[in-house]
Amino acid sequence: MIAQFQHHINNKLPFLKQGKLLIAISGGLDSVVLTHLCHKLKLNIALAHCNFNLRGEESDADEDFVLQLADDLDLEVFIESFDTTSYAQEFKMSIQMAARDLRYHWFQELKEQLKFDYILTAHHADDNLETFLINLSRGTGLDGLTGIPEVNASIVRPLLQFPRQAIEDYANQHKLTWRNDSSNASTKYLRNKLRHDVIPILKEINPQLLQNFQTTVNNLNDSADIVDDALNAVLKCAIVNIDVNTLKFKISEFKALKNPKAYLHEFLKDFGFTEWHDVVNLLDAQSGKQVFSPTHRLLKDREYLILTDLTADDDSQSISIAENDTNIQIPLGVLHFSEVDTMSTINPNILYVDKALLKYPLSVRKWLEGDIFYPLGMNGKKKLSKYLKDEKLSLIEKENIWLLTSGEAIVWVIGKRADDRFKVTDNTEQILKIELI
Amino acid sequence: MIAQFQHHINNKLPFLKQGKLLIAISGGLDSVVLTHLCHKLKLNIALAHCNFNLRGEESDADEDFVLQLADDLDLEVFIESFDTTSYAQEFKMSIQMAARDLRYHWFQELKEQLKFDYILTAHHADDNLETFLINLSRGTGLDGLTGIPEVNASIVRPLLQFPRQAIEDYANQHKLTWRNDSSNASTKYLRNKLRHDVIPILKEINPQLLQNFQTTVNNLNDSADIVDDALNAVLKCAIVNIDVNTLKFKISEFKALKNPKAYLHEFLKDFGFTEWHDVVNLLDAQSGKQVFSPTHRLLKDREYLILTDLTADDDSQSISIAENDTNIQIPLGVLHFSEVDTMSTINPNILYVDKALLKYPLSVRKWLEGDIFYPLGMNGKKKLSKYLKDEKLSLIEKENIWLLTSGEAIVWVIGKRADDRFKVTDNTEQILKIELI
Repeated sequence: MIAQFQHHINNKLPFLKQGKLLIAISGGLDSVVLTHLCHKLKLNIALAHCNFNLRGEESDADEDFVLQLADDLDLEVFIESFDTTSYAQEFKMSIQMAARDLRYHWFQELKEQLKFDYILTAHHADDNLETFLINLSRGTGLDGLTGIPEVNASIVRPLLQFPRQAIEDYANQHKLTWRNDSSNASTKYLRNKLRHDVIPILKEINPQLLQNFQTTVNNLNDSADIVDDALNAVLKCAIVNIDVNTLKFKISEFKALKNPKAYLHEFLKDFGFTEWHDVVNLLDAQSGKQVFSPTHRLLKDREYLILTDLTADDDSQSISIAENDTNIQIPLGVLHFSEVDTMSTINPNILYVDKALLKYPLSVRKWLEGDIFYPLGMNGKKKLSKYLKDEKLSLIEKENIWLLTSGEAIVWVIGKRADDRFKVTDNTEQILKIELI
Repeated sequence: MIAQFQHHINNKLPFLKQGKLLIAISGGLDSVVLTHLCHKLKLNIALAHCNFNLRGEESDADEDFVLQLADDLDLEVFIESFDTTSYAQEFKMSIQMAARDLRYHWFQELKEQLKFDYILTAHHADDNLETFLINLSRGTGLDGLTGIPEVNASIVRPLLQFPRQAIEDYANQHKLTWRNDSSNASTKYLRNKLRHDVIPILKEINPQLLQNFQTTVNNLNDSADIVDDALNAVLKCAIVNIDVNTLKFKISEFKALKNPKAYLHEFLKDFGFTEWHDVVNLLDAQSGKQVFSPTHRLLKDREYLILTDLTADDDSQSISIAENDTNIQIPLGVLHFSEVDTMSTINPNILYVDKALLKYPLSVRKWLEGDIFYPLGMNGKKKLSKYLKDEKLSLIEKENIWLLTSGEAIVWVIGKRADDRFKVTDNTEQILKIELI
């Protein structure tokens, strides 16, 4: 496998050879093999391991295993311990989502602070096929069948083309050891069922299953790109007006299409609508007719469909924050302001800034087309709309993005990303901690 | 199930209540249940059964079973016996393709001659899911995952939303009998594997599997419609010239796209190309560079990509046929002309026309944009391009369509469809039989 891996890196991912790489390692088979392969190729790697403290001693033994591996291979290693259960409770998430969130943010922090170029994860071809089948069993669309990408911004999955079997064979040939995760999470159970009961039969039907699946996924990604182009082209003509809480669509643009439902579904699926028949009927309905989702209203108004966010009555003006405010209610929760001496806890809902750089009063407002900021850790500025797109936020998640601003400048995409211009530096005299609760 | 079936007919397929319906019946579980359900709802049905003579006495017993069922239910029944094996040999097809061809053409003949409005087949939800998984195991794209449609021109599949289990339950509750097909064709084997080993586990993972799958298929069909729109929009700008053997694409139109490969792949996939990397590289290559498929050449010529059919050197002119010609070589084979007294064998490669209506010399030529004909059995005329689209021919199949013409009029879309204007009627004095060998 080492030869194929090397070939793949040389041909498809040559940029990894120059980069400073951080491998996300659980201690399981896949990430251990990825680590060994990268080490053999003498790539410039370090390890990062999250201890989510979800399985008591076992979690600690995983951590020890990773420390020992790093020591054996003489690699730099970062370990972080999380109270995942509390985090999940506090932010009302599933344990799984909480772990993903914590892991992702910590990796990004490490990457930015220590100037890593890429974060490597050990997903492989079977993972991708399993996800495809899970989504299929639950009902999905093109989005749910296009798989995880091999390269997505700074996250790279160099094993994505390799089957689990090859990885296991490599580990056995080289007498590697790894940790087995005993957790019985429901996805683990699902994946095991697919792995042991479904995929082997599909492989019997066609031994080339995984290669063929890769072809399928590539083709579906191409189709998804074409769909994207078409949606953007239609949106460009159909959207006549965007403001904070409403989107206005020109009905004539939909009626010119062979299958208006296909487009309406794509544009509106993230707003909670389910009665697509009613939505499509609006095109020909009397002015004043409307269809509701739990959060939104779609109104026929002469030649237009107008989409309104019902959850955001007082969105339109911004919320002003004075220097002596400590708790401010915003639509996302409460912002708590306090002056601190050091940056301790790091989580996506906490921002530390250099207070002297702020111009009061601060504001909290929704984002607008044309907003620009300087993402922390990046050189230079970025369109906020581009950032939100790169983060793969759905339309509805984008609708819920709020900004903390100082004068014209964005200080914080709240709960998402800090602005580089206000960060704490060695020259900072007063650290302001802002927490979203 | 009868209540759901009735509800489905009333809501989604109400046109079946007024139509004259022909049910394609094998004698197996699905088509027997379909027949019973339609009979219960007092729809206007007749039965059509093909005896493919592939399983000796068993085939005859199937035929007897269908005759008895028709008798029991007091239904009109049509039976046709085919020498499927010879047909497959003669036209160099698999047995399966031959059976499909024979069945399809016979049903269409019956429909046209006896004025049926719709042909009903008994495909159900599991069939669709099995096809999806078979295509997935072989590698596919969006096209291979969109399933069979419930309504496709005059073919209707009223059971498509129903799971096999519901059909089996209905048959058992009503103590129906049916014939089990003992044939062990490879697809049968595949489908059995999926049916017994794979799909039950996917249903365990999610008991709503089939409903969710229906949602997935609907979503993918919507995406496919959007892709179609986008491809047509790009083709409209990109194609600068079509003639009989060449297509000329404007390179600038592809280079303006985010993912030119996605589009090039869609446009060229039916022409046998496989080296997509090379194809995409042509966009930036020196003039004169070319990429070959087994049948076609794609040439970079300044601002254009020119696709040429290499198998069709002497396509460009038409072939003239005099009244006394009996055998004429055309690119598809040999056309044999003979005068006969009756129309006996019917197959897609034989045409019977009223000789008096022809103007000699006849011509054989490729089809052109703008060609119009009068499809046999239809009222009125149809654009040939629309006909070919409705027949779901691939680009490459379309490239291989040849016409027999009399003056300006199309007499025969060779091997596909006769023109109504030249058909044999009660007034015909001389029947000309034209056979493609």
